[in-house]
Amino acid sequence: MEDLKEWKNNEIWGLEAWKSLCRVRELCPLIQCITNYVSMDIMANTLLAAGASPAMVHAVEEIADFTPHAKGLCINIGTLTPDWTVSMKAAAAKAAESQKPWVLDPVAAGASTYRMERCLELVDLKPTVIRGNASEILALAGASIGSTKGVDSSHVSTDALEAAKELACRTQAVVAVSGAVDLVTDGERVLGVSNGVPLMQKITATGCAVTALIAAFVALQPNLALEATCFALAVFGMAGEIGMEKANGPASLRMHLIDALYGLDKESVLSKINISKYD
Amino acid sequence: MEDLKEWKNNEIWGLEAWKSLCRVRELCPLIQCITNYVSMDIMANTLLAAGASPAMVHAVEEIADFTPHAKGLCINIGTLTPDWTVSMKAAAAKAAESQKPWVLDPVAAGASTYRMERCLELVDLKPTVIRGNASEILALAGASIGSTKGVDSSHVSTDALEAAKELACRTQAVVAVSGAVDLVTDGERVLGVSNGVPLMQKITATGCAVTALIAAFVALQPNLALEATCFALAVFGMAGEIGMEKANGPASLRMHLIDALYGLDKESVLSKINISKYD
Amino acid sequence: MEDLKEWKNNEIWGLEAWKSLCRVRELCPLIQCITNYVSMDIMANTLLAAGASPAMVHAVEEIADFTPHAKGLCINIGTLTPDWTVSMKAAAAKAAESQKPWVLDPVAAGASTYRMERCLELVDLKPTVIRGNASEILALAGASIGSTKGVDSSHVSTDALEAAKELACRTQAVVAVSGAVDLVTDGERVLGVSNGVPLMQKITATGCAVTALIAAFVALQPNLALEATCFALAVFGMAGEIGMEKANGPASLRMHLIDALYGLDKESVLSKINISKYD
Repeated sequence: MEDLKEWKNNEIWGLEAWKSLCRVRELCPLIQCITNYVSMDIMANTLLAAGASPAMVHAVEEIADFTPHAKGLCINIGTLTPDWTVSMKAAAAKAAESQKPWVLDPVAAGASTYRMERCLELVDLKPTVIRGNASEILALAGASIGSTKGVDSSHVSTDALEAAKELACRTQAVVAVSGAVDLVTDGERVLGVSNGVPLMQKITATGCAVTALIAAFVALQPNLALEATCFALAVFGMAGEIGMEKANGPASLRMHLIDALYGLDKESVLSKINISKYD
Repeated sequence: MEDLKEWKNNEIWGLEAWKSLCRVRELCPLIQCITNYVSMDIMANTLLAAGASPAMVHAVEEIADFTPHAKGLCINIGTLTPDWTVSMKAAAAKAAESQKPWVLDPVAAGASTYRMERCLELVDLKPTVIRGNASEILALAGASIGSTKGVDSSHVSTDALEAAKELACRTQAVVAVSGAVDLVTDGERVLGVSNGVPLMQKITATGCAVTALIAAFVALQPNLALEATCFALAVFGMAGEIGMEKANGPASLRMHLIDALYGLDKESVLSKINISKYD
Repeated sequence: MEDLKEWKNNEIWGLEAWKSLCRVRELCPLIQCITNYVSMDIMANTLLAAGASPAMVHAVEEIADFTPHAKGLCINIGTLTPDWTVSMKAAAAKAAESQKPWVLDPVAAGASTYRMERCLELVDLKPTVIRGNASEILALAGASIGSTKGVDSSHVSTDALEAAKELACRTQAVVAVSGAVDLVTDGERVLGVSNGVPLMQKITATGCAVTALIAAFVALQPNLALEATCFALAVFGMAGEIGMEKANGPASLRMHLIDALYGLDKESVLSKINISKYD
């Protein structure tokens, strides 16, 4: 009976996720990305493969002109420095002012005091969604340094569930914790997305790339940020599952994942989607 | 009769393009690239695959020593900031002074006033070639803001033909407008290059990469900048056509394109080249 | 008899290299990379494929917090500018202070006076290993400008053997000269690593990537820096050899190389390793 309900729900989730992806492909939303250097190639290619239009624009001189024309904004602090911080804050403020959704990726939030302070300043600027791994969300929720080991998580997503809910309540952001099961919460509801394959963690910046994809999905459904976040995570994960069928290692997985994202069809979305209530 | 003439011309173009590619492979020209972060990997790999030697050197402190040793210079304003602008202008001035050809890629020229102003300053430094998509060339020719939607074109190349001719006349640069048909003009003559496949637009920075390839070709034939530009566009497009035979999406196309560029042989160049007078 | 000895030695080298790789996979050392923009993607993916945990952290504000937690540090001057230089020196000093090994990649050392001066300052901060191509090592050892043509070597590794030995003696660093045969010396002993395939030179930043891999291997065997350097070079070269079996050009080689590095097994290491005394 429960199984049937789960299946029923996934049929609905699948249709909704498919519609969201179709919307991205049709409307081709312009997504401004202020992101780390490592991620730029895979992030831009992920957005293009999904049908969105990426623009890596970070000069503070351009934000007044450019940010209002973007449909969504992705801010990723991976290779943070003071000059970029100024741009990130200006763009986040401008997005908030223009009522455009923006998504924060607090890469390695707990790796240094400097990084944590900048994260907290960005969180104050009201991100629509915050996506990180468990170590990052734990660090950010607790404003604690030293818990993050570089950029890779030393926790599983469920370790960070309470922290994520608390962070969501406090900031009014949707918070997504990536992991074997991605947990997504608005502070009340919690959804789990179980798409994806472990080898994706061996490709640099896949987390960054999916954050940008969340920005694209949420840009077109700002009032359904929880669901749109789940759909972006699910779609990216499915592309990884399909890619894994042909992959021989992380580099070929990366290629097949992007190809699969580009070619993703309704049948695959409906058959592969794996979203469930998590509580 | 017209068909025969076209065929005849393409036989000649093919032989010339093949010679140009062979020259790049033999002489391995050092090409300095001051380019956006997104494009660096694919640009360097494109130049290497074609036989050139890329060097991403952008510190203003190095330009006096380095730029005179390069055979050509590629300047791309994709992820523009004030500090990089200083380097771009210094390098362009040094290249002009050393009578080295340099190529400008005015990425998203119309996306902000800041960007347009920097573009116009660079255009004043006499680029040998300017290559952009239709929206960028229209914006640059008209010095108009707001017509560019991010980095992707919202126009087809023929929309920008008159603007390109006018820009070429005014600046004495060869102007290339990328699109389904790439249009290349020195203000008087117009050539159309019809190589390439649509899916190349779904790979980030292919436009940036071909601009660098133009720099490599023009570096060795500075007095035939119109033709060398066409040959670089044709060669890159052919590599895309060959790559497309094996590709399953944008990421595998990217890989096969670079492989095909590296392996491109005389027979393929002669049979695939598609250049025609466009007027 | 000599052949037998060589074979015997390679059996031992193979077992030791395999153990080193297993140690990286088990301990997943955090490697801080302050590197050029072009290399970031392939460097991070190389470290991940080998089992290490890369972190591209370069803000001077973070070094006091972050560098002591890293197991090793890779500094690469490819796209050098004054602000990055400050971070490089601070991180190198901090690594030395924390007795963490650090590895220097003096990209295009001889391309400008500015670049050479920064290299010499970094060399004064006692790198554990210096890896470059022959032109770079020659330039660095002689503090001479103009001998480097961009980032590609115009010399073979043996040209730089004496310079490498002298540099190693003077700096107490292990010096590795990449080439068809990689030469590695501590100033007294010289080992030659003959793994790899020529086409790897047509992939941008493979040299940068192997330098980071050296940092990962040396991080776990700081007292055997000469051997660990050879093992990293051999392992990367073997991955290239395996990758080459499926490659059709430089882009597919890049993919298959990373896949092969991820999947490298004991049998391949033992059968392919090619290290010999070089004197």
